[in-house]
Amino acid sequence: MAIERIDPWGSVLIEDYQKIIESYGMEPFNEKILKKFPKPNRLMRRFVVFGHQDLDRIADAIKNKKEFAILTGIMPSSEKLHLGNKMVVEMVKYFQEQGGEANVLVADLEALATRDISLEEAEKRAMNFHIPAYIALGLDPKKTNFYFQSKNKIVRDLAYEFSTKLTLNEFRAIYGDLNAGKIISVLTQIGDILYPQVKKSKPVVVPVGPDQSPHLRACRDVVRRYKKYNFILPSATYHKYTPSLDGSMKMSKSQPNSYISIPEDPEEVAKKMLITKTGGQKTIEEQKKLGGKPEECVIFELFKQHLIEDDDELNEIYEKCKQGKIMCGECKKKAAELMKKFMEDFNKKFKKAKEEMNKVNIMKF
Amino acid sequence: MAIERIDPWGSVLIEDYQKIIESYGMEPFNEKILKKFPKPNRLMRRFVVFGHQDLDRIADAIKNKKEFAILTGIMPSSEKLHLGNKMVVEMVKYFQEQGGEANVLVADLEALATRDISLEEAEKRAMNFHIPAYIALGLDPKKTNFYFQSKNKIVRDLAYEFSTKLTLNEFRAIYGDLNAGKIISVLTQIGDILYPQVKKSKPVVVPVGPDQSPHLRACRDVVRRYKKYNFILPSATYHKYTPSLDGSMKMSKSQPNSYISIPEDPEEVAKKMLITKTGGQKTIEEQKKLGGKPEECVIFELFKQHLIEDDDELNEIYEKCKQGKIMCGECKKKAAELMKKFMEDFNKKFKKAKEEMNKVNIMKF
Repeated sequence: MAIERIDPWGSVLIEDYQKIIESYGMEPFNEKILKKFPKPNRLMRRFVVFGHQDLDRIADAIKNKKEFAILTGIMPSSEKLHLGNKMVVEMVKYFQEQGGEANVLVADLEALATRDISLEEAEKRAMNFHIPAYIALGLDPKKTNFYFQSKNKIVRDLAYEFSTKLTLNEFRAIYGDLNAGKIISVLTQIGDILYPQVKKSKPVVVPVGPDQSPHLRACRDVVRRYKKYNFILPSATYHKYTPSLDGSMKMSKSQPNSYISIPEDPEEVAKKMLITKTGGQKTIEEQKKLGGKPEECVIFELFKQHLIEDDDELNEIYEKCKQGKIMCGECKKKAAELMKKFMEDFNKKFKKAKEEMNKVNIMKF
Repeated sequence: MAIERIDPWGSVLIEDYQKIIESYGMEPFNEKILKKFPKPNRLMRRFVVFGHQDLDRIADAIKNKKEFAILTGIMPSSEKLHLGNKMVVEMVKYFQEQGGEANVLVADLEALATRDISLEEAEKRAMNFHIPAYIALGLDPKKTNFYFQSKNKIVRDLAYEFSTKLTLNEFRAIYGDLNAGKIISVLTQIGDILYPQVKKSKPVVVPVGPDQSPHLRACRDVVRRYKKYNFILPSATYHKYTPSLDGSMKMSKSQPNSYISIPEDPEEVAKKMLITKTGGQKTIEEQKKLGGKPEECVIFELFKQHLIEDDDELNEIYEKCKQGKIMCGECKKKAAELMKKFMEDFNKKFKKAKEEMNKVNIMKF
């Protein structure tokens, strides 16, 4: 059977992301920018990273072996991580391996201001779960600078310094329903993003999901308006969401079978794979005849985004599906095995990370 | 000549202050509350302190020798002090002498967020001028806890914790034209006011001018809504403004002859007294016949608020003026001498305070 040659890494959601690129003033992450990066990771090669801002600056820094930094944050209010956090860590890890200085903040002040979580509670949660979990997902504990917002006086001072650089309407554009807690959280986050540049201006990349784009915009507005520090405009990568297991736009906590937590019981998560939405035809006969629709298949999206590292292997599944040579049951079973293995691996690495928390570079101020 | 027996400490402005009491939800500072305080100071005895909130609580603490605290702030953006600062210091001093623990913060974060003054610059100004000036005005350098907002992590953390306890409309009521810098400044100020109670709930009194009333209201609203700390509602005293030398409502920086700075050249300030508005009649003859109007006399107000400590002496001037036995030139000359002496004294004390800055209790965190 002849198949159309379409982008095998594409997604049915691509149209939505095109809109996001346009409305949020991002640039598309395409072949041209991809080629500028050595050994791009799975998310980049497959355009799960779909948009960016000023990423050329990071590519140049890598190429010319110049200093650059990476910044991401941990929100210690959540009790578990999700696949979006995994993608962030993979991006941080990639840039870290290309020579970037990685900074990971625990947003304890934001948790206090927006979720009423005490600083003590936030620290406990971060030390017991979030930091070792980020290490289990791939961060180098010795090379990564972890810090708590509340203990970083420089970040806190920057929040005050920037406070008059944005109008309340601009804050409103970020958060919609505005309150003072959200305002000081945004200001603190801007302080975090610019913190790596306080001693010396340098490119900084912030890997995020598209929902974080307004924060980047606010930060970039501050940099444009406030010349005192000679900050370089921060760069960003934007990655797609992992679709809900039932095929809707985004995983939702109200539907436990729609999403995957990290960690999750390996057996349970395997079971979820077996009821996940695929792009299969109504009957096996039809599928053999017409082929499946990997572009509409959540299992295939999980393979692509998370579970299958080898491009040839992924490509083969895509082709076989389109040709009706592989059935959904087979893919679900494979996904169940891979997801189970991922969780088992995570658990092992998490245990090890917890035992080695003394080796983690948690910044003192 | 028979004179009406009116309150010799009264003021033509009293009607305005009655309105302020009503619209800001203060209680009047009257004979009844005055009697609860041992050895009331000049400002209290003469009802320059015109309003208060929950001041009975402070009177009780003094009477029962229970712990209480005093809180005031220094705004390090100003280059000089004014007579309003002098009144604040006198109130702090009074409560300090009655056993209160005095806390004086330098609002360096507020100066950063609302006036774009760097923390370094604010510290320099406070150490070189504001702190020794407050000591020269009467604070005990060893017994007073001075601190910088930016260095007080507890205050800063409280600002985040309280950030969702007030609505943006409530912030707007305080500041009118709102921006994020003002919002975080109010939150930090609330942190300051409640800081003395963090380790242990206790009455706290904040002596202020009526323009600061909205801040107190915001702080008291937070306390009412947020029960976690068992904070006691902060108390406040409100004192009148010193009228403009030309008789208008408030001193204005745009009219150098309308106000008195601290410090000011002793000879210059003496000259200002000679052109200050009095309550005299058009001619000496009329004044001898009809008497003067001390209630409308700025010189008399300066005697009452600042220059004459002895009640009998002040009363005598009042009576003589009403009876036409003293002319305005005489009072102006007296005011010139007293004001000159005040400035000379201030300069001496300021010099001494600067030499003894090493003895000042500036809190380390």
